[in-house]
Amino acid sequence: MQDERESLTLGFIGLGAMGWPMCEHLQRAGHRLRVWVRDAARRERAAAAGMQLCASAAEVAAGADVVLTNVTSTADVEQVLLGEHGVVHGAAPGLLCIDHSTIAPDGARRIGAALRARGVDFVDAPVSGGERGAIDGTLTVMLGGDAAACARALPLLRCYGRHIERIGDIGGGQVAKLCNQIVQVITIEGIAEAMRYCAAEGADAQRVLQVLSSGFAGSRMLELMGPKMVARDFAAGIQARLHAKDFGLAADAAAAAGLTLPALAAVRKQLDRLVELGLGTQDTSALLQVLERG
Amino acid sequence: MQDERESLTLGFIGLGAMGWPMCEHLQRAGHRLRVWVRDAARRERAAAAGMQLCASAAEVAAGADVVLTNVTSTADVEQVLLGEHGVVHGAAPGLLCIDHSTIAPDGARRIGAALRARGVDFVDAPVSGGERGAIDGTLTVMLGGDAAACARALPLLRCYGRHIERIGDIGGGQVAKLCNQIVQVITIEGIAEAMRYCAAEGADAQRVLQVLSSGFAGSRMLELMGPKMVARDFAAGIQARLHAKDFGLAADAAAAAGLTLPALAAVRKQLDRLVELGLGTQDTSALLQVLERG
Repeated sequence: MQDERESLTLGFIGLGAMGWPMCEHLQRAGHRLRVWVRDAARRERAAAAGMQLCASAAEVAAGADVVLTNVTSTADVEQVLLGEHGVVHGAAPGLLCIDHSTIAPDGARRIGAALRARGVDFVDAPVSGGERGAIDGTLTVMLGGDAAACARALPLLRCYGRHIERIGDIGGGQVAKLCNQIVQVITIEGIAEAMRYCAAEGADAQRVLQVLSSGFAGSRMLELMGPKMVARDFAAGIQARLHAKDFGLAADAAAAAGLTLPALAAVRKQLDRLVELGLGTQDTSALLQVLERG
Repeated sequence: MQDERESLTLGFIGLGAMGWPMCEHLQRAGHRLRVWVRDAARRERAAAAGMQLCASAAEVAAGADVVLTNVTSTADVEQVLLGEHGVVHGAAPGLLCIDHSTIAPDGARRIGAALRARGVDFVDAPVSGGERGAIDGTLTVMLGGDAAACARALPLLRCYGRHIERIGDIGGGQVAKLCNQIVQVITIEGIAEAMRYCAAEGADAQRVLQVLSSGFAGSRMLELMGPKMVARDFAAGIQARLHAKDFGLAADAAAAAGLTLPALAAVRKQLDRLVELGLGTQDTSALLQVLERG
């Protein structure tokens, strides 16, 4: 296991809404950061914060003890880690890659095997808790990988993760994350459908929310999304297009396992429709707007 | 408003899993109970507890200040309150009827109007919180009715209700209850689909539940139903057939309002299938078994 107070050289790729506060937490813990950033404004911000700018993912990996990635799709992770100018081309033997992206479990397993063949360790470590959780350092981290690699990742994950659970081998983190998304977004759709019905009956949505939150319908999503729907505040925490992506992954993984999951299928359609309606950069509470368009 | 400490003569019809502990709370608060019970064992139990056995709903109403009902369907409530030998035929002027059943909002409005024409007050007061909540006196009560009638009901509802919210006029309680059921049971289906997927991937369900409960997927239902699904303990708290009934009501009310609610429709089908499979007297966590049968 890595010493908790050891100062490491870390590579980080994917300085978005989640990645940026993660990097800040890692810096505050005394680690040096090497980053590869394409966006000009973000490059400037990273340089100003004392991060080492690199010209490629391979260069990020050169001299790094651990490389962390937080990008969008399975193909993005493959490109950044295994593609041309990818991490694997700059990696010293024994490098550990920690991937925070939400991708296909099978993709994670494939990437892990390809890295292993080059002497690089890999753990999949998707997170839940949103931008707020990243800023506050209260993220939930779902880990997949062999026990030694997970133990090595742990001191870094503790910089921004409050609940960290190893689910099993590589891909296990992604399975747990898809379970998380299935429950979370199906719950949001349930709240949206109830709010739509409530409005159609002309009932007081504020009072209905109040009473729901005290009983068996109570949830983290009811607390967060209910008031947003009532206030018609669809500004994004997590953009709905990312949940649409995750539901595509979950539907594919379920189909590959031979499963029929009807609520997952119904909510996937609603999320796809939301994106088609041009609402993909809004919050997932905008599922209410999809229902309103009939 | 009724004096909180005034001892009243109450009628109660529907001494099931919820109704019985409600009656015990009312007795403990010093009220006298008149009941109409068809089941022989329950009659004996009620008599032993010092409740006055009556031969009909009309007889329950004779001399009662308030009649409370907790039965199953809209037709049941109509029969008991307005049918032959129903409450209305024994009611003294100014009687208040409090209905705890979950029925169609339109049905509640129709019943309320029919009682009003006979000089009887009515409030719809469906509850959430299950048998446990009834026993512990921690139920959530959703109230519909005019303000004076609701104020009159309040001291009695406080005997077993912790969160009591007046939503609006008659039917408002039922609208809130259907919103509650929509959110609650769609959430249960989401948990069942995630657990089904988790099992198909061979992931550790206990660890996945653990991690889900700490993040955005957390809910009252995840706490209650998640462990039941993992333990395959489908013994009923609330029987799934009652949720199937409620989803029929919700689907009808949504259709009458011209709404298309896809998760509601998908989950209604699963609940109906559950009943067809002979699992209706199990807990709603048995939605997992419906998914397992493919």
